[in-house]
Amino acid sequence: MKTIPLILMGCGGVGRQLLQHIASCRSLHFKQGLHLRVVGVCDSRSLVVAADFLNKELDDSFLSELCRVKLGGSSLAKLADLGECQVFVHPESQGKLLEIASHLGKSTGLVFVDCSASSDTIVVLKQVVDLGSCIVLANKKPLTSTMEDFEKLFTHPRRIRHESTVGAGLPVIASLNRIISSGDPVHRIVGSLSGTLGFVMSELEDGKPLSQVVRAAKSLGYTEPDPRDDLGGMDVARKALILARILGQQINLNDLKIESLYPEEMGSSVMTVDDFLGRGLLLLDKDVQKRVEKASSNGNVLRYVCVIEGSRCEVGIQELPKNSALGRLRGSDNVLEIYTRCYSEQPLVIQGAGAGNDTTAAGVLADIIDIQDLFP
Amino acid sequence: MKTIPLILMGCGGVGRQLLQHIASCRSLHFKQGLHLRVVGVCDSRSLVVAADFLNKELDDSFLSELCRVKLGGSSLAKLADLGECQVFVHPESQGKLLEIASHLGKSTGLVFVDCSASSDTIVVLKQVVDLGSCIVLANKKPLTSTMEDFEKLFTHPRRIRHESTVGAGLPVIASLNRIISSGDPVHRIVGSLSGTLGFVMSELEDGKPLSQVVRAAKSLGYTEPDPRDDLGGMDVARKALILARILGQQINLNDLKIESLYPEEMGSSVMTVDDFLGRGLLLLDKDVQKRVEKASSNGNVLRYVCVIEGSRCEVGIQELPKNSALGRLRGSDNVLEIYTRCYSEQPLVIQGAGAGNDTTAAGVLADIIDIQDLFP
Repeated sequence: MKTIPLILMGCGGVGRQLLQHIASCRSLHFKQGLHLRVVGVCDSRSLVVAADFLNKELDDSFLSELCRVKLGGSSLAKLADLGECQVFVHPESQGKLLEIASHLGKSTGLVFVDCSASSDTIVVLKQVVDLGSCIVLANKKPLTSTMEDFEKLFTHPRRIRHESTVGAGLPVIASLNRIISSGDPVHRIVGSLSGTLGFVMSELEDGKPLSQVVRAAKSLGYTEPDPRDDLGGMDVARKALILARILGQQINLNDLKIESLYPEEMGSSVMTVDDFLGRGLLLLDKDVQKRVEKASSNGNVLRYVCVIEGSRCEVGIQELPKNSALGRLRGSDNVLEIYTRCYSEQPLVIQGAGAGNDTTAAGVLADIIDIQDLFP
Repeated sequence: MKTIPLILMGCGGVGRQLLQHIASCRSLHFKQGLHLRVVGVCDSRSLVVAADFLNKELDDSFLSELCRVKLGGSSLAKLADLGECQVFVHPESQGKLLEIASHLGKSTGLVFVDCSASSDTIVVLKQVVDLGSCIVLANKKPLTSTMEDFEKLFTHPRRIRHESTVGAGLPVIASLNRIISSGDPVHRIVGSLSGTLGFVMSELEDGKPLSQVVRAAKSLGYTEPDPRDDLGGMDVARKALILARILGQQINLNDLKIESLYPEEMGSSVMTVDDFLGRGLLLLDKDVQKRVEKASSNGNVLRYVCVIEGSRCEVGIQELPKNSALGRLRGSDNVLEIYTRCYSEQPLVIQGAGAGNDTTAAGVLADIIDIQDLFP
């Protein structure tokens, strides 16, 4: 039996879903000779660790109680009463994480699984790399910080996986890594990597005004509470940056050309959400409609995409052929077109749901299983 | 530096392309701390091995000469004059392969890379599994033989890779394995896995008769020399069987329902190729046209696909919605739709060129790089 010890960072929706997936896959993984041993779980404030972390783990019933506590909005500290575990609060929690890594990293092996959405994990992640730990990320922040941080995390490229940082569980990173390792040069990547913006852009085609489409997207639950968090393009930019860096571009987030669907004067420091939805958006309708019509007269449609090509990496609205994979996109699926020597005229296309806790956590779990050969 | 010793079986188009890819990726792989050491190459008759195979390899200039010899239609035996290599002919070659595997399999590790299209490799492959060797396949035959053979080859599931057995280099198997290992249950796979049949079925939509479309496909070089080798569906059936077995179906090739696009009385033992193309196909036009029209009246199109669902695995013509990924397919791309818990309403779609020596060999090379963690 091969054992993979792991520490989960972040127990929001994705982290809790991951714990559920791990529990429900126990017998499947057991058949494959694998045991996933959850040694500790932390959020931004606290860390819960199995008291005897060298030999024991937080078992599934404990983890299920942990999820209940977090879902109820309580602190992980509440779990201290359950026994057989220790709770550390920030900043002691950081020291404990390093202690665990130095004990387990180079002996049994250890995976730090970052399912948070925070930049606060970067410091610890960089340190545990040197202690022999593996890293699995759903969190985009560590890979979209400085190039120095990025390169530090990739010190041992086989010990880091991050499928769920782009397109959730869609096999984007795995496929791209296969292409790169086979020496097939990537000429161009074009991708619709936001379910929200994919939906919005495809709905515009039918002649609906932007204001109406954004309101519909919000009421369908496709957007963030403030839809400007989607419309600004920053989330897509982070994904684009990760793809560009994998392809070897040495760039930072502020090197990217990012087109926002709303102007600065409608930003959240100027306008409330309600004002933006009620009044601001209406002012954008006419311009957007003109662009849609112009594209249509060229036989094209508009898509909000990332384009990565040579030393170029940008994010914004592009006119694309109606009959391409991206042009045919309807609804909230993500679509990625990869052009390489092998896929030169027709691209390699990967399409499917690119968001959701279930698929994101599934991508993380597949990453953990994928690094099993690094464990003794 | 990590070294991966390998033996190439089959030096037809795919095998020769693989040797070229390996040579042109030398510096890329060197940067990653990897060295691919080609210890031997065999075809159906002969085996060429580095004379001192424990320490030496067949270098790139030797392998380039080997490709030239094979392309010219000569025997590998011709290479004996070049020195530093030994040539063995069948059946001595088999014994030599086992000798190499028993020396290298459990010490340095060894990969048998089967790029042939023959069933003759199965006996050796099953034996080297027990000697600790890894296996990478582009050849479908070893995985579509008996269940006993299949299970033997999967004795150590981490030591076998076979991406290029389905959809050439398209990341089909890698993606499916990720889905399975994350516990996301696969409900249904529908795929157009023949470039020829994908082209034929999409051309029929425009009202063109089957006879004309098949002749066009042949003149475009999309078909085998005898197009019945494509139209019979056996190649698609082998791919379907591999997918079904990965999903846990314990079935054999003759358990599959396979629809042939031509009747038995037009088989190759009854009719010449020219007769079939000139006369036979014309007799099929009317029936096919009727089916196309019926589908169209339902808002659907016809596609030649594999369907794998529950304990069902079949291959043939299906009516599919015009606006699905499969329905929108034009040309010779492969398309796979995977329905799972995570991808339940909209499937995960993988699309792209599913044939060609370049992409097939690229898939094989990515597989080899993917198992590097198993090597010391």
